[in-house]
Amino acid sequence: MDILGVRGYNLPAINDMEPIYEGKAKRLFTTDDPNVLRMEYKDSATAFNGVKKEDFENKGRFNKAITLIIYRMLEARGVATHLVDDVDDINLLVKKVSIIPLEVIVRNVAAGSFSKRMGVTEGTAFKKPIVEFSYKDDSLGDPFINDDYAREMGAATEEECLNIKKMALLVNDVLCEFFLKANLRLIDFKIELGRLAEDPTKIVLADEISPDTCRLWDVETGKKMDKDRFRQGLGGFMEAYADVLDRLQK
Amino acid sequence: MDILGVRGYNLPAINDMEPIYEGKAKRLFTTDDPNVLRMEYKDSATAFNGVKKEDFENKGRFNKAITLIIYRMLEARGVATHLVDDVDDINLLVKKVSIIPLEVIVRNVAAGSFSKRMGVTEGTAFKKPIVEFSYKDDSLGDPFINDDYAREMGAATEEECLNIKKMALLVNDVLCEFFLKANLRLIDFKIELGRLAEDPTKIVLADEISPDTCRLWDVETGKKMDKDRFRQGLGGFMEAYADVLDRLQK
Repeated sequence: MDILGVRGYNLPAINDMEPIYEGKAKRLFTTDDPNVLRMEYKDSATAFNGVKKEDFENKGRFNKAITLIIYRMLEARGVATHLVDDVDDINLLVKKVSIIPLEVIVRNVAAGSFSKRMGVTEGTAFKKPIVEFSYKDDSLGDPFINDDYAREMGAATEEECLNIKKMALLVNDVLCEFFLKANLRLIDFKIELGRLAEDPTKIVLADEISPDTCRLWDVETGKKMDKDRFRQGLGGFMEAYADVLDRLQK
Repeated sequence: MDILGVRGYNLPAINDMEPIYEGKAKRLFTTDDPNVLRMEYKDSATAFNGVKKEDFENKGRFNKAITLIIYRMLEARGVATHLVDDVDDINLLVKKVSIIPLEVIVRNVAAGSFSKRMGVTEGTAFKKPIVEFSYKDDSLGDPFINDDYAREMGAATEEECLNIKKMALLVNDVLCEFFLKANLRLIDFKIELGRLAEDPTKIVLADEISPDTCRLWDVETGKKMDKDRFRQGLGGFMEAYADVLDRLQK
């Protein structure tokens, strides 16, 4: 599968390359531009810090397509992302970034770790969205932290933490409205941010926004349309992702 | 042991009374003033959410005496506390408050749960103090939360959280200086706050400040002079408390 000349990026034969990074759900490859990488979406699903793991055909394809739609929409709304261009069904060109070791979680409705931690019934709506940080470190289990921890761990300055929270709340506003048009309720989501390799003072949205990183419930039925179907073994996992993509393409 | 007429409070015979509240380390009794309670310091030591438990002679006495010295000093420095007056060796008169369900922790040096959570060596000094909140709920294990959680759990408003953090940092400044004069390094401490029964808009320091709630290391030797001696079974537990009281009285 040779892909040459996507908007001026001459990509080597994709299958010949070694990734410069391989994560749980994506791989990164160099391009001929030192500030641009190719991000390949894998078919693997993982949960519980990698303890539960399985491959699902087309998962990479769905997540790549959903992320592309969302990132283009966010860019149009003034949110800077790492997106450069589309490549093919499982690859995007993205700006090279240094990932900030924070998982930034925005919650509109109690679910998942919030419900467990606080003893609050899943489905309880918050008065205002909650923003929280986890420190990205698998060996520590991505612990819940606050701004002071982020500062002392060297993850982000106090000012950056405030800006990241503002950005997360803006993304939440845009996404809530966007998903609602697709009859989906945005319960919570996780974003990751990176500092641009070409200008580390600039922080952009990196990673992905997909049913892997969002909790999405059907507005009418409350049906879970996200990775909780995998986590909780509810079945119809890829069917739900296909449905989300289908709704967003309408 | 009858104590009558302490600054106008006629206390009934202490041994005849039933506490209106009994915690792990203190008991609360009514007085003839509906806005004032008697706080009795118990001899029990508990750790790991009550799993480790033992009685130590004079512990209540030491903690009451240390708290009294510290609260009088803090009041003189403009920090509002629940302290009304001294009663005897294990009792204080305190303003009746509704306790805010937050444990407010200030850290100057990595230790305890911070070191465990973040994989940072105990004794690593922070560039600036860390303030963090735990949600006071034994059944949930007092989970680490942030301001947004505090707001949604109804523990405190956003403005109150900011004020509580400012107050905690002021207390830290005053305590660091105060303990240093006693050749003690304030590693971290926990405070609790309450809303005055007579005016719930007023938030004051409640509970205690003692070697039960502070980590204190001898400046020269680094010797632990606090409840970690009990948690970690280091021996010389009450000797350390007696030493702290002795140093603060000088």
